[in-house]
Amino acid sequence: MMKIYGWDRSGNCLKVRFVADRLGLDYEWVEVNSAELETRQDWYLKLNPVGQIPIVQFDDGRVLSQSNAILLHLARDSDLVPDDPWRLAQVHQWLFWEQYSHEPYIAVCRFLKVFKGMTDAELDPQKVERGNTALDVMDGRLAEAPWFAGDSPTVADLSLVAYTRWADEGGFDLAARPHVAEWIGRVERFLGL
Amino acid sequence: MMKIYGWDRSGNCLKVRFVADRLGLDYEWVEVNSAELETRQDWYLKLNPVGQIPIVQFDDGRVLSQSNAILLHLARDSDLVPDDPWRLAQVHQWLFWEQYSHEPYIAVCRFLKVFKGMTDAELDPQKVERGNTALDVMDGRLAEAPWFAGDSPTVADLSLVAYTRWADEGGFDLAARPHVAEWIGRVERFLGL
Repeated sequence: MMKIYGWDRSGNCLKVRFVADRLGLDYEWVEVNSAELETRQDWYLKLNPVGQIPIVQFDDGRVLSQSNAILLHLARDSDLVPDDPWRLAQVHQWLFWEQYSHEPYIAVCRFLKVFKGMTDAELDPQKVERGNTALDVMDGRLAEAPWFAGDSPTVADLSLVAYTRWADEGGFDLAARPHVAEWIGRVERFLGL
Repeated sequence: MMKIYGWDRSGNCLKVRFVADRLGLDYEWVEVNSAELETRQDWYLKLNPVGQIPIVQFDDGRVLSQSNAILLHLARDSDLVPDDPWRLAQVHQWLFWEQYSHEPYIAVCRFLKVFKGMTDAELDPQKVERGNTALDVMDGRLAEAPWFAGDSPTVADLSLVAYTRWADEGGFDLAARPHVAEWIGRVERFLGL
Protein backbone atom coordinates (compact mmCIF):
# COMPACT_ATOMS: atom_id res chain seq x y z
CA MET A 1 0.00 0.00 0.00
CA MET A 2 1.16 3.54 -0.76
CA LYS A 3 2.62 5.34 2.25
CA ILE A 4 2.29 9.07 2.80
CA TYR A 5 4.91 10.43 5.17
CA GLY A 6 3.69 13.69 6.63
CA TRP A 7 2.85 15.79 9.67
CA ASP A 8 -0.83 16.47 10.26
CA ARG A 9 -0.17 20.11 11.22
CA SER A 10 1.58 20.82 7.90
CA GLY A 11 -0.52 22.16 5.05
CA ASN A 12 1.97 20.81 2.53
CA CYS A 13 1.31 17.34 3.93
CA LEU A 14 -2.44 17.70 4.39
CA LYS A 15 -2.93 18.72 0.77
CA VAL A 16 -1.66 15.26 -0.21
CA ARG A 17 -4.21 13.69 2.14
CA PHE A 18 -6.96 15.91 0.68
CA VAL A 19 -6.23 14.64 -2.83
CA ALA A 20 -5.78 11.00 -1.82
CA ASP A 21 -9.04 11.03 0.17
CA ARG A 22 -10.97 12.82 -2.57
CA LEU A 23 -9.76 10.23 -5.09
CA GLY A 24 -10.48 7.35 -2.71
CA LEU A 25 -6.89 6.08 -2.81
CA ASP A 26 -5.71 3.51 -0.29
CA TYR A 27 -2.74 4.67 1.74
CA GLU A 28 -1.02 4.41 5.08
CA TRP A 29 -0.29 7.74 6.79
CA VAL A 30 3.08 7.76 8.54
CA GLU A 31 3.33 10.67 10.95
CA VAL A 32 6.64 12.56 10.78
CA ASN A 33 6.86 15.69 12.91
CA SER A 34 9.17 18.14 11.15
CA ALA A 35 8.89 20.66 13.98
CA GLU A 36 10.52 18.00 16.18
CA LEU A 37 13.18 17.47 13.47
CA GLU A 38 12.10 13.88 12.78
CA THR A 39 12.82 14.72 9.14
CA ARG A 40 16.51 15.02 10.06
CA GLN A 41 16.76 11.49 11.43
CA ASP A 42 18.76 8.92 9.49
CA TRP A 43 15.80 6.66 8.68
CA TYR A 44 13.94 9.57 7.08
CA LEU A 45 16.95 10.97 5.22
CA LYS A 46 17.33 7.55 3.58
CA LEU A 47 13.84 8.02 2.14
CA ASN A 48 14.31 11.70 1.26
CA PRO A 49 17.90 13.03 1.39
CA VAL A 50 16.48 16.57 1.11
CA GLY A 51 14.84 16.09 4.54
CA GLN A 52 11.50 17.65 3.60
CA ILE A 53 7.95 16.39 4.09
CA PRO A 54 5.69 15.21 2.56
CA ILE A 55 6.82 12.26 0.50
CA VAL A 56 4.91 9.33 -0.91
CA GLN A 57 6.43 5.88 -1.21
CA PHE A 58 4.92 3.36 -3.58
CA ASP A 59 4.85 -0.42 -3.13
CA ASP A 60 7.93 -0.91 -5.27
CA GLY A 61 9.96 1.48 -3.13
CA ARG A 62 9.92 4.50 -5.42
CA VAL A 63 9.71 7.82 -3.56
CA LEU A 64 8.27 11.12 -4.77
CA SER A 65 8.76 14.41 -2.93
CA GLN A 66 7.48 17.99 -3.34
CA SER A 67 3.84 18.31 -2.33
CA ASN A 68 2.58 19.82 -5.57
CA ALA A 69 4.44 17.26 -7.70
CA ILE A 70 2.76 14.55 -5.60
CA LEU A 71 -0.66 16.11 -6.21
CA LEU A 72 -0.11 16.23 -9.98
CA HIS A 73 1.04 12.61 -9.99
CA LEU A 74 -1.67 11.09 -7.80
CA ALA A 75 -4.47 12.97 -9.59
CA ARG A 76 -3.06 12.67 -13.13
CA ASP A 77 -5.97 10.63 -14.50
CA SER A 78 -8.72 12.55 -12.70
CA ASP A 79 -10.68 15.77 -13.28
CA LEU A 80 -8.43 17.42 -10.69
CA VAL A 81 -5.71 17.67 -13.36
CA PRO A 82 -7.25 19.05 -16.57
CA ASP A 83 -6.43 17.60 -19.99
CA ASP A 84 -6.90 20.92 -21.75
CA PRO A 85 -3.41 22.41 -22.24
CA TRP A 86 -4.38 25.96 -21.28
CA ARG A 87 -6.25 24.92 -18.12
CA LEU A 88 -3.33 22.67 -17.22
CA ALA A 89 -0.94 25.60 -17.72
CA GLN A 90 -3.03 27.67 -15.30
CA VAL A 91 -2.98 24.83 -12.76
CA HIS A 92 0.82 24.73 -13.02
CA GLN A 93 1.03 28.53 -12.78
CA TRP A 94 -0.92 28.63 -9.53
CA LEU A 95 0.96 25.63 -8.06
CA PHE A 96 4.32 27.31 -8.64
CA TRP A 97 2.96 30.60 -7.35
CA GLU A 98 1.75 28.81 -4.21
CA GLN A 99 5.22 27.50 -3.41
CA TYR A 100 7.09 30.72 -4.26
CA SER A 101 4.77 33.59 -3.32
CA HIS A 102 2.29 32.15 -0.81
CA GLU A 103 3.66 29.30 1.32
CA PRO A 104 6.93 31.07 2.34
CA TYR A 105 4.83 33.85 3.93
CA ILE A 106 1.39 32.47 4.85
CA ALA A 107 2.69 29.13 6.13
CA VAL A 108 5.91 30.44 7.65
CA CYS A 109 4.22 33.22 9.69
CA ARG A 110 1.76 30.64 11.04
CA PHE A 111 4.58 28.23 11.86
CA LEU A 112 6.51 30.90 13.74
CA LYS A 113 3.44 32.01 15.72
CA VAL A 114 1.88 28.62 16.45
CA PHE A 115 4.94 26.40 16.86
CA LYS A 116 7.69 28.85 17.83
CA GLY A 117 5.59 31.14 20.02
CA MET A 118 6.44 34.36 18.18
CA THR A 119 4.20 37.40 18.61
CA ASP A 120 2.89 39.45 15.67
CA ALA A 121 5.44 42.14 16.55
CA GLU A 122 8.30 39.63 16.27
CA LEU A 123 7.39 38.50 12.75
CA ASP A 124 9.47 39.79 9.84
CA PRO A 125 7.35 42.69 8.46
CA GLN A 126 8.37 41.79 4.90
CA LYS A 127 6.96 38.27 5.34
CA VAL A 128 3.72 39.71 6.70
CA GLU A 129 3.47 42.20 3.81
CA ARG A 130 4.08 39.51 1.21
CA GLY A 131 1.54 37.22 2.88
CA ASN A 132 -1.04 39.99 2.67
CA THR A 133 -0.15 40.54 -0.98
CA ALA A 134 -0.65 36.83 -1.65
CA LEU A 135 -4.12 36.88 -0.08
CA ASP A 136 -5.01 39.99 -2.11
CA VAL A 137 -3.88 38.28 -5.32
CA MET A 138 -6.12 35.32 -4.46
CA ASP A 139 -9.06 37.58 -3.62
CA GLY A 140 -8.68 39.36 -6.96
CA ARG A 141 -8.69 36.10 -8.85
CA LEU A 142 -11.65 34.70 -6.90
CA ALA A 143 -13.69 37.86 -7.52
CA GLU A 144 -13.69 36.79 -11.18
CA ALA A 145 -14.15 33.02 -10.98
CA PRO A 146 -15.08 30.42 -8.36
CA TRP A 147 -12.00 28.24 -8.92
CA PHE A 148 -8.36 28.93 -9.83
CA ALA A 149 -8.21 27.12 -13.16
CA GLY A 150 -11.39 26.83 -15.20
CA ASP A 151 -14.89 26.12 -13.98
CA SER A 152 -14.31 23.21 -11.63
CA PRO A 153 -11.95 22.43 -8.75
CA THR A 154 -8.41 21.28 -9.54
CA VAL A 155 -5.28 20.41 -7.59
CA ALA A 156 -4.52 24.17 -7.67
CA ASP A 157 -7.49 24.81 -5.37
CA LEU A 158 -6.65 21.85 -3.14
CA SER A 159 -3.04 22.97 -2.85
CA LEU A 160 -3.83 26.62 -2.14
CA VAL A 161 -6.52 25.90 0.42
CA ALA A 162 -4.21 23.91 2.70
CA TYR A 163 -2.42 26.89 4.25
CA THR A 164 -4.96 29.57 3.29
CA ARG A 165 -7.63 28.11 5.60
CA TRP A 166 -5.14 28.47 8.48
CA ALA A 167 -3.96 31.97 7.51
CA ASP A 168 -5.67 33.51 10.54
CA GLU A 169 -3.36 31.45 12.77
CA GLY A 170 -0.50 33.41 11.17
CA GLY A 171 -2.17 36.72 11.95
CA PHE A 172 -3.72 37.32 8.53
CA ASP A 173 -7.26 38.66 8.13
CA LEU A 174 -9.38 36.32 6.03
CA ALA A 175 -12.59 38.24 6.76
CA ALA A 176 -11.10 41.16 4.82
CA ARG A 177 -10.92 38.92 1.73
CA PRO A 178 -14.52 37.81 1.29
CA HIS A 179 -13.92 35.99 -2.00
CA VAL A 180 -11.16 33.95 -0.38
CA ALA A 181 -13.34 33.19 2.63
CA GLU A 182 -16.20 31.98 0.40
CA TRP A 183 -13.84 29.89 -1.72
CA ILE A 184 -12.41 28.19 1.40
CA GLY A 185 -15.96 27.11 2.24
CA ARG A 186 -16.51 25.83 -1.31
CA VAL A 187 -13.28 23.78 -1.27
CA GLU A 188 -14.02 22.40 2.20
CA ARG A 189 -17.47 21.27 1.07
CA PHE A 190 -15.91 19.69 -2.04
CA LEU A 191 -13.50 17.80 0.22
CA GLY A 192 -16.10 16.95 2.83
CA LEU A 193 -14.07 18.66 5.58
CA MET B 1 3.84 36.41 -32.52
CA MET B 2 4.34 35.23 -28.94
CA LYS B 3 5.98 37.80 -26.70
CA ILE B 4 8.31 36.88 -23.85
CA TYR B 5 8.60 39.65 -21.27
CA GLY B 6 11.82 39.20 -19.35
CA TRP B 7 15.14 40.61 -18.17
CA ASP B 8 18.23 39.10 -19.74
CA ARG B 9 20.10 39.02 -16.41
CA SER B 10 17.37 36.93 -14.75
CA GLY B 11 17.76 33.15 -14.83
CA ASN B 12 14.00 32.72 -14.44
CA CYS B 13 13.57 34.66 -17.68
CA LEU B 14 16.50 33.13 -19.55
CA LYS B 15 15.21 29.59 -18.94
CA VAL B 16 12.15 30.53 -21.01
CA ARG B 17 14.44 31.73 -23.79
CA PHE B 18 16.48 28.49 -23.55
CA VAL B 19 13.37 26.39 -24.12
CA ALA B 20 11.90 28.61 -26.85
CA ASP B 21 15.21 28.66 -28.73
CA ARG B 22 15.77 24.93 -28.33
CA LEU B 23 12.26 24.27 -29.72
CA GLY B 24 12.74 26.80 -32.54
CA LEU B 25 9.70 28.85 -31.49
CA ASP B 26 9.14 32.31 -32.95
CA TYR B 27 8.90 35.02 -30.31
CA GLU B 28 9.57 38.66 -29.60
CA TRP B 29 11.67 39.33 -26.50
CA VAL B 30 10.47 42.38 -24.57
CA GLU B 31 13.10 43.51 -22.09
CA VAL B 32 11.71 44.36 -18.64
CA ASN B 33 14.30 45.22 -16.00
CA SER B 34 12.93 44.11 -12.65
CA ALA B 35 15.99 45.47 -10.80
CA GLU B 36 14.88 48.92 -12.07
CA LEU B 37 11.32 48.13 -10.93
CA GLU B 38 9.90 48.20 -14.45
CA THR B 39 7.72 45.29 -13.29
CA ARG B 40 5.96 47.73 -10.93
CA GLN B 41 4.90 50.12 -13.70
CA ASP B 42 1.22 50.32 -14.61
CA TRP B 43 1.62 48.97 -18.14
CA TYR B 44 3.32 45.83 -16.79
CA LEU B 45 0.93 45.30 -13.89
CA LYS B 46 -1.91 45.23 -16.44
CA LEU B 47 -0.20 42.22 -18.02
CA ASN B 48 0.72 40.55 -14.74
CA PRO B 49 -0.91 41.95 -11.58
CA VAL B 50 1.55 39.92 -9.50
CA GLY B 51 4.39 42.08 -10.91
CA GLN B 52 6.79 39.20 -11.55
CA ILE B 53 8.83 38.29 -14.63
CA PRO B 54 8.87 36.36 -16.87
CA ILE B 55 5.52 36.16 -18.60
CA VAL B 56 4.57 35.03 -22.07
CA GLN B 57 1.73 36.64 -23.99
CA PHE B 58 0.14 34.78 -26.88
CA ASP B 59 -1.37 36.33 -30.02
CA ASP B 60 -4.89 36.22 -28.59
CA GLY B 61 -3.81 38.17 -25.52
CA ARG B 62 -3.66 35.29 -23.03
CA VAL B 63 -0.86 35.66 -20.47
CA LEU B 64 0.97 32.92 -18.58
CA SER B 65 3.28 33.58 -15.64
CA GLN B 66 5.62 31.48 -13.45
CA SER B 67 8.76 30.46 -15.31
CA ASN B 68 8.45 26.72 -14.75
CA ALA B 69 4.77 26.69 -15.73
CA ILE B 70 5.78 28.47 -18.95
CA LEU B 71 8.44 25.83 -19.64
CA LEU B 72 5.96 22.98 -19.15
CA HIS B 73 3.46 24.69 -21.44
CA LEU B 74 5.78 25.67 -24.28
CA ALA B 75 7.49 22.26 -24.34
CA ARG B 76 4.39 20.15 -23.71
CA ASP B 77 4.54 18.30 -27.03
CA SER B 78 8.32 17.82 -27.09
CA ASP B 79 10.82 15.38 -25.59
CA LEU B 80 11.62 18.04 -22.98
CA VAL B 81 8.39 17.08 -21.16
CA PRO B 82 8.23 13.27 -20.87
CA ASP B 83 5.01 11.35 -21.53
CA ASP B 84 5.89 8.61 -19.04
CA PRO B 85 4.02 9.41 -15.79
CA TRP B 86 6.91 8.59 -13.48
CA ARG B 87 9.47 10.59 -15.47
CA LEU B 88 6.99 13.46 -15.62
CA ALA B 89 6.54 13.26 -11.85
CA GLN B 90 10.29 13.57 -11.41
CA VAL B 91 10.37 16.58 -13.74
CA HIS B 92 7.67 18.21 -11.62
CA GLN B 93 9.48 17.29 -8.40
CA TRP B 94 12.69 18.98 -9.51
CA LEU B 95 10.87 22.05 -10.90
CA PHE B 96 9.11 22.64 -7.57
CA TRP B 97 12.35 21.99 -5.69
CA GLU B 98 14.10 24.56 -7.91
CA GLN B 99 11.63 27.29 -6.99
CA TYR B 100 11.45 26.44 -3.27
CA SER B 101 14.89 25.19 -2.27
CA HIS B 102 17.29 26.51 -4.93
CA GLU B 103 16.26 29.83 -6.50
CA PRO B 104 15.54 31.65 -3.19
CA TYR B 105 19.18 31.04 -2.16
CA ILE B 106 21.32 30.59 -5.30
CA ALA B 107 19.59 33.34 -7.29
CA VAL B 108 18.98 35.70 -4.39
CA CYS B 109 22.61 35.65 -3.14
CA ARG B 110 23.78 36.41 -6.69
CA PHE B 111 21.23 39.21 -7.04
CA LEU B 112 22.33 40.82 -3.78
CA LYS B 113 26.03 40.60 -4.69
CA VAL B 114 25.85 41.54 -8.38
CA PHE B 115 23.00 44.06 -8.42
CA LYS B 116 22.92 45.39 -4.86
CA GLY B 117 26.67 45.43 -4.23
CA MET B 118 26.61 43.30 -1.08
CA THR B 119 29.78 41.58 0.10
CA ASP B 120 29.94 37.91 1.08
CA ALA B 121 30.03 38.98 4.72
CA GLU B 122 26.79 40.92 4.33
CA LEU B 123 24.81 37.98 2.95
CA ASP B 124 22.37 36.18 5.27
CA PRO B 125 24.37 33.11 6.44
CA GLN B 126 21.21 30.99 6.35
CA LYS B 127 20.70 31.81 2.65
CA VAL B 128 24.33 30.88 1.94
CA GLU B 129 24.01 27.61 3.86
CA ARG B 130 20.81 26.65 2.08
CA GLY B 131 22.36 27.52 -1.28
CA ASN B 132 25.27 25.23 -0.51
CA THR B 133 22.84 22.49 0.50
CA ALA B 134 21.00 22.90 -2.81
CA LEU B 135 24.23 22.50 -4.78
CA ASP B 136 25.14 19.43 -2.72
CA VAL B 137 21.72 17.88 -3.42
CA MET B 138 22.27 18.48 -7.14
CA ASP B 139 25.79 17.02 -7.00
CA GLY B 140 24.46 13.92 -5.27
CA ARG B 141 21.80 13.39 -7.91
CA LEU B 142 24.23 14.01 -10.79
CA ALA B 143 26.72 11.53 -9.36
CA GLU B 144 24.09 8.87 -10.19
CA ALA B 145 22.70 10.06 -13.53
CA PRO B 146 23.59 12.56 -16.23
CA TRP B 147 20.18 14.30 -16.21
CA PHE B 148 17.60 15.05 -13.55
CA ALA B 149 14.68 12.99 -14.88
CA GLY B 150 15.45 9.92 -16.93
CA ASP B 151 18.15 9.46 -19.54
CA SER B 152 17.74 12.59 -21.64
CA PRO B 153 17.47 16.33 -20.94
CA THR B 154 14.12 17.75 -19.84
CA VAL B 155 12.77 21.11 -18.77
CA ALA B 156 14.01 20.20 -15.26
CA ASP B 157 17.61 20.45 -16.49
CA LEU B 158 16.94 23.64 -18.46
CA SER B 159 15.25 25.25 -15.47
CA LEU B 160 17.91 24.27 -12.96
CA VAL B 161 20.84 25.30 -15.14
CA ALA B 162 19.67 28.90 -15.47
CA TYR B 163 20.83 30.08 -12.04
CA THR B 164 23.22 27.21 -11.30
CA ARG B 165 25.62 28.29 -14.06
CA TRP B 166 25.81 31.72 -12.39
CA ALA B 167 26.14 30.35 -8.84
CA ASP B 168 29.77 31.51 -8.62
CA GLU B 169 28.54 35.11 -9.01
CA GLY B 170 26.66 34.53 -5.74
CA GLY B 171 29.81 33.32 -4.00
CA PHE B 172 29.15 29.58 -4.36
CA ASP B 173 31.88 27.13 -5.29
CA LEU B 174 30.95 25.15 -8.39
CA ALA B 175 34.42 23.59 -8.68
CA ALA B 176 33.73 21.78 -5.39
CA ARG B 177 30.73 20.06 -7.07
CA PRO B 178 32.34 18.33 -10.06
CA HIS B 179 29.17 16.52 -11.13
CA VAL B 180 27.29 19.82 -11.23
CA ALA B 181 30.11 21.48 -13.16
CA GLU B 182 30.13 18.69 -15.77
CA TRP B 183 26.35 18.76 -16.07
CA ILE B 184 26.38 22.53 -16.69
CA GLY B 185 28.69 21.86 -19.63
CA ARG B 186 26.40 19.12 -20.93
CA VAL B 187 23.32 21.34 -20.75
CA GLU B 188 25.14 24.28 -22.35
CA ARG B 189 26.21 22.07 -25.25
CA PHE B 190 22.65 20.78 -25.60
CA LEU B 191 21.43 24.38 -25.79
CA GLY B 192 24.27 25.56 -28.03
CA LEU B 193 25.32 28.19 -25.50
